[in-house]
Order: sequence, then C-alpha cells, then structure tokens
Amino acid sequence: MQTGAKFVRHFEQELEQLKGKLLEMSALVEASVQRSVAAVTQKDRSAAEQVFRDEARINELEMEIDEFAITLLATQQVVAADLRLVVAALKINTDLERMGDLSVHIAQRAISLLSEPVIKPMVDVRHMSSLVESMVRKSLDAFVTNDAEMARSVLSSDNAVDSLRTASYHELVSFMEKDPHNIPQALDLIGITKSLERIADHSTNIAEDVLFLVKGIDVRHHAEARQ
Amino acid sequence: MQTGAKFVRHFEQELEQLKGKLLEMSALVEASVQRSVAAVTQKDRSAAEQVFRDEARINELEMEIDEFAITLLATQQVVAADLRLVVAALKINTDLERMGDLSVHIAQRAISLLSEPVIKPMVDVRHMSSLVESMVRKSLDAFVTNDAEMARSVLSSDNAVDSLRTASYHELVSFMEKDPHNIPQALDLIGITKSLERIADHSTNIAEDVLFLVKGIDVRHHAEARQ
Repeated sequence: MQTGAKFVRHFEQELEQLKGKLLEMSALVEASVQRSVAAVTQKDRSAAEQVFRDEARINELEMEIDEFAITLLATQQVVAADLRLVVAALKINTDLERMGDLSVHIAQRAISLLSEPVIKPMVDVRHMSSLVESMVRKSLDAFVTNDAEMARSVLSSDNAVDSLRTASYHELVSFMEKDPHNIPQALDLIGITKSLERIADHSTNIAEDVLFLVKGIDVRHHAEARQ
Repeated sequence: MQTGAKFVRHFEQELEQLKGKLLEMSALVEASVQRSVAAVTQKDRSAAEQVFRDEARINELEMEIDEFAITLLATQQVVAADLRLVVAALKINTDLERMGDLSVHIAQRAISLLSEPVIKPMVDVRHMSSLVESMVRKSLDAFVTNDAEMARSVLSSDNAVDSLRTASYHELVSFMEKDPHNIPQALDLIGITKSLERIADHSTNIAEDVLFLVKGIDVRHHAEARQ
C-alpha cells in the first residue's frame, strides 16, 4: 500500500507540474495578446518588441508541455478525468502557441502602422480587442478553476466578436474606396481585426476543452449543447 | 497466452480503425481543398457548393476521431510508437478540421468573385494553389506511408508558398491603389491567398507530426532539425 500511495502522490505531482507549465504558458500568451493590442491602440513600439522577444519562450514551452504530457501518457495508465486533463492540455497547448503567433502578427502590423498617418480613431479595434482580451482571460481562468459557467460565457462572446469584425471590415473597405491613400493602413487594420477574431476562435476552442474536461461532453459543432 | 495474443490483435485492429477514420477525413479534406480552388480558378459554383455540403461530415469525423483516440488511451496502456501514433492522430485531426474550415472560406470568397469582373488572370492563385495542393497531398501520403523523406519535402515548400503569397499581396495592393473599383475583388483574392497560406501551414504541421511519429523527434521551431 505504501508504494501504491507513493505512486499516486507522484502521479498527482506530475499532473500539477503539467498544469503549472500550462499556466506559465497561459500567462505569457495572455500578456502577449495584451501587449500586441497596446502596440496598436497606444502606438507603443516597446510593447511590440516585448511580444517579439517572448515568442521564443512560448515556442519552447509548447514543446516542453507536449513532451511532458506524452511522457505522462507513456509511463502511467491515465484514466477518466486525469486522461481528459492530459488530452485537454495537449489541445490547449496548441491553441496557446497559435495565439502567441497571432500576437506577433498583430505586433508586426502595429509597427507598420507607426509610420502611417492615423486614418480614423481606432474605436472599433479598442472595443473588439477589449472583448477578445476578456475572452482570453476567461477561457484561461475557466481552465485554472475548472469553471464550466465561465467557459460557457466565452462561447457566447464569439458571435459578438464576429459581428464587430464584419462591421469594421465594411467600414475599412469604404475608407479604402474613398481614398486609395488609406489602403495600406486599412489593410493593416483588417489584418489586425482578423488576427483578433482568430484569437477569439482559439479562446473558444479552449473554453470547449474546459467543458469537455469538466463535464466530459464535446460541445464542438453542437450549438444546442453550448447553452 | 491465448488471451494476450487476442488482446494485442484487438488493439492493433483498433489502431487500424483509427488510421482508417483519419484516412476518410484526409480524403474529404483533400477533396475540399481541391474543390475550393476549382471554385476560384474555374469559377465553378457547384464545386463550392460541394465544399459547403462536406463540411458537416468533416466536423462529425473530427469528433469521432478524437473520441476514438481518447477511448484507446483510456482503455489500453499505449506505449512508444503506438502512443506517438495516437497523439499524432489527435493533432492531425485538429489540423484537418481547420483545413476544412479554410476550404469553406475559400469557397465563400469564390462565390463572391463570381459576381465580380475578372480583374487579372489568376495566374498567381493557380501557381500558389497547385503548390499548396501538392503540400496537402504529400503531407497526407507521408502520414499513410510513414515516409519521413516525403514529410521533409513538405517543410521545404512552405517558404515558397509564403513568398508567392507576399508577391501576390503587393500586386493586389497596387491593383487597389490604381482603381478603387478593384478593391472588392482584390480583397477576395487576398483572403483566398491568405487561406491557402494557412492550409500550407497546417500541411507543415502534419508533416512535423509525421516526423515526430516516424523519427520520434520534434522539429517544430528547430530549423536545423528539419534538414
């Protein structure tokens, strides 16, 4: 029994370590998303540069987490809720890394916007990005605290982000049509809102993984199960 | 021993079933990519409509494959190469589903282009899409045949796709600047080439998973290990 108890304790420690690495990754990615948005809305070049610097660590962590999860699966008979946690960790890890990449894209567009005249107050971007930042935060908090309600609240925000993106797209197209000098900036802003929309999609994926983790149900492609 | 041998045989059958489902999914996604490209380059509305119809089955298969893989992990002590296969299946599954989504985006843009005058011969799109289609095919063939060399050839095409995309982007921007009437079509074509680039990225992910599967090495974020 002594050995069995030790074994269980050791396994639980490893699961905690896996969660700890994912939290380090989440914190970095959340900060990168916020910094990339600040780079756009506050024309903050140093925030963009920090995003570029943090990308390497995010990439490293992605590989560490995958390796850790696969070693866990290989060395332990992981079942039920623990298995769901390890599989969710693998999936969330992929989403976080892509969110890191998208922050880099936004930061690159922010740098390009620095050299261009401001064509319109960036109210849309601010509104959309604060909604997306809140989705990112909530999806990660839901994972940390196993909170199904919070995960569902992320799913319900996704449509709002899509609508904001569509509205800003049409507005930016009309800016371009009005004056071709606006084209480069408008394209940068279209790229930024597209990246924000994709970050929201990845937050939605994470929230779906949390629901799978907490409830054991797969809500992807099932609108009715998301309520 | 009889029971042990039966157990191994049963497990191998399940692994084969998992691979079979992934192959069904691959075939559908590969066809959707090809049809979405045909919808653009040949202005083929019925090809676009087939892409929309097949999306539901792709989404269904994504969930079936995930569930199958997780059940395998839960009911068997999967180790070594078999474990790598199941983890690769989970990852490839996610990439395939996203490639299906991107085909839908391309097909939607193709429908929108149908009502617009042709602003330029779509040579770039044809060239880029034939390269991307070949990456998709090779990454899936590499998975089916465990072919590391073929997987590496996919990785080496990714830069070519990025260069084509960048060149076509600049050309399309200059078209917009020349005449604002070109803006809607040019934006559709920018969206299409962006989606093609992302399909190439997912093929690259699949090729990386094949290398992990065959060689047990992680080539992500390591340019030197890709040679």
